[in-house]
Amino acid sequence: MTETTWVDGAAGSLYDLDNLPYAVFSDATQDEPRLGVRIGDHVLDLGAAARELRPEWAPLLDVAALNPLMAAGPETWAAVRSWVNDLLSDESNRERVTLHPIADVVTHLPFEVADYVDYYASEHHATNVGRIFRPDGDALLPNWKHLPVGYHGRAGSIVVSGTDIHRPAGQRKAPSDDGPTYGPSQRLDIEAELGFMVGRSVPLGQRVGTGEFAETVFGVTGVNDWSARDIQAWEYVPLGPNLAKSFATSVSAWVTPLAALDAARIDLPEQEVPVLPYLEESNATTYDIDVEVELNGVVVARPPYRTMYWSPAQMLAHLTVNGASLRVGDFYASGTISGSEKDQRGSFLELSWGGKEPFVLDGEERSFLQDGDEVVLRYSAPGARGGRIGLGEVRGRILPTL
Amino acid sequence: MTETTWVDGAAGSLYDLDNLPYAVFSDATQDEPRLGVRIGDHVLDLGAAARELRPEWAPLLDVAALNPLMAAGPETWAAVRSWVNDLLSDESNRERVTLHPIADVVTHLPFEVADYVDYYASEHHATNVGRIFRPDGDALLPNWKHLPVGYHGRAGSIVVSGTDIHRPAGQRKAPSDDGPTYGPSQRLDIEAELGFMVGRSVPLGQRVGTGEFAETVFGVTGVNDWSARDIQAWEYVPLGPNLAKSFATSVSAWVTPLAALDAARIDLPEQEVPVLPYLEESNATTYDIDVEVELNGVVVARPPYRTMYWSPAQMLAHLTVNGASLRVGDFYASGTISGSEKDQRGSFLELSWGGKEPFVLDGEERSFLQDGDEVVLRYSAPGARGGRIGLGEVRGRILPTL
Repeated sequence: MTETTWVDGAAGSLYDLDNLPYAVFSDATQDEPRLGVRIGDHVLDLGAAARELRPEWAPLLDVAALNPLMAAGPETWAAVRSWVNDLLSDESNRERVTLHPIADVVTHLPFEVADYVDYYASEHHATNVGRIFRPDGDALLPNWKHLPVGYHGRAGSIVVSGTDIHRPAGQRKAPSDDGPTYGPSQRLDIEAELGFMVGRSVPLGQRVGTGEFAETVFGVTGVNDWSARDIQAWEYVPLGPNLAKSFATSVSAWVTPLAALDAARIDLPEQEVPVLPYLEESNATTYDIDVEVELNGVVVARPPYRTMYWSPAQMLAHLTVNGASLRVGDFYASGTISGSEKDQRGSFLELSWGGKEPFVLDGEERSFLQDGDEVVLRYSAPGARGGRIGLGEVRGRILPTL
Repeated sequence: MTETTWVDGAAGSLYDLDNLPYAVFSDATQDEPRLGVRIGDHVLDLGAAARELRPEWAPLLDVAALNPLMAAGPETWAAVRSWVNDLLSDESNRERVTLHPIADVVTHLPFEVADYVDYYASEHHATNVGRIFRPDGDALLPNWKHLPVGYHGRAGSIVVSGTDIHRPAGQRKAPSDDGPTYGPSQRLDIEAELGFMVGRSVPLGQRVGTGEFAETVFGVTGVNDWSARDIQAWEYVPLGPNLAKSFATSVSAWVTPLAALDAARIDLPEQEVPVLPYLEESNATTYDIDVEVELNGVVVARPPYRTMYWSPAQMLAHLTVNGASLRVGDFYASGTISGSEKDQRGSFLELSWGGKEPFVLDGEERSFLQDGDEVVLRYSAPGARGGRIGLGEVRGRILPTL
């Protein structure tokens, strides 16, 4: 990749030609949402470019969701990416395409979500949670190193970065309470995760192997799986979390295609317990993605995705090993990303050790979220040009319960 | 309701004018799926009727899913039902509408499923399962009588009655095994349930009260929530069932509108533990629906829906009390329907007491499902004309793992 982009200020930025993430956007000149590609501090109007320069691709690109492009398959993903690279590196296109300053656009949920599965793939996170919730038991449950534990979340409450989040209400019961009470959650938390978007349909009864990851997953987003810990603790036996999670899940507006993450692929940390054959991978890899958790403008944690125990391909293979179908728009997330160090934990539950060890922010003791708090998750990774690429951000502010 | 239908053989049947359930169907004369209404042993071609007689309703009725009609709201639900009643009771319409013999039509999944939540609302079922899985603990967990426990299932693997089901494979580990093994489920089960289809969108952050049930729920279907008990027992801690359920859920092709169930409304059995205000209902009601579980042509159980602990309106109110949004096409199911008697249990897990007390079918001892087995769930209820109405059936045959 030796071309240079003609877009001012983009070369060497987090959004150079080695990145080229997608979003669905609109702006004051056109209400209708369509696809865009980020380059530097600008958005290439991909919908307009397709209409004018590649009308055969307009049904994939001049649309309000990534699903048609995702459904078109890996060869088209590569062809579109290559075309966008040409548009932005060949100066003769300067007058042929439209760029919008990023500050002038509104981003929308980038895809129609089919089913949403959330995993629990960080050993550090699962161990921390086990120690906090079951101090007298084993931190990890017996199944944890044999399969990526996961559950289905609520697809309908997935929202795009920037959407305000109303504090959820529900039933809580502390062990010392006689019975449950109803009210706004008092232990509202985040979970900093990475999400994977499926761009392929597979019928019921079949399976997707670990080797099919690159042809099945279109790209990644950042994910904040907002969690009400008090609601969760009371409701979750025996069928798992429900209302504690279903009120909102935020994803980044910008979707990073897998091709942009080639330079971020690294070996998966060794799994000490042998896995069953359907979870085996030749040359198991994961991604060297850094995450920053920012609360009210202050970075409070830096979870490293490279420490995750289960690989993205293993999570995909597990999803369909029972014969479950896949649809374009299926979405699975990693679960909270937490590293081995205290400042690498991706939830306030862990950062404050269940609220028992508050941390200090701007001179104030903090554990769970307060109304008015704003959380921003930022993701970045090594790029193909020797620098870094940005994976966008997941932003959300807490509003009072309605 | 004093009219008589002119359709031969329909008066006094399970599908008389007091029923009028909807399906999505196609037939040899027209490939394109559209809505139909069952009357006796015939299907009224509602798509064709709308095209020819009420073109303003064609966008709701001449379509391949119930979602547009559901989204149109309760006044339109009532108006369409009244129009269909007129079409089928006024003999002058005999030459104006098209009836297809039921044997000549193919039915399809009747609606596009948004999110799917499965509850656990039968006290008898939850108690039986607790005794089987946790013989030394309390049968019911502490939260069970305070909230309707539920989890999100996989919307993408919901299939219409008549779809063959491939036996799922996955990880199982018996307590005596050293580690998990992979293979076809050896404890494949059914769950006989009732499902509720949401026909209303509600934004994030708001709540739907118990009093809004009739304006929010369009109708009901039968549900078979196929379950792999060996996969479930190993995977389900701490995040609940996932692959044990996500391989397939069958629903009836025929959707019974709530209006057809008015005569089946009965008082909810008294709840001995007071509920929090958001779950309170003035005149709490449920439905007097009888279910038959048929295995290879033999009725093996008759679960009574009237014995369920949580009401349909309570399950709805719980779903959104945290501010979760609703979409048209959201679907929630009751969980296994089991009565107090042994022959009223809606799962083979309970009928065979975890496999320890096999039952006899055609002289053979049976507990869980074998390849080639066919299960049919049949539902019926009191109708408005003094007889009974049929709620269709949920049929599925077990094929070997692919």
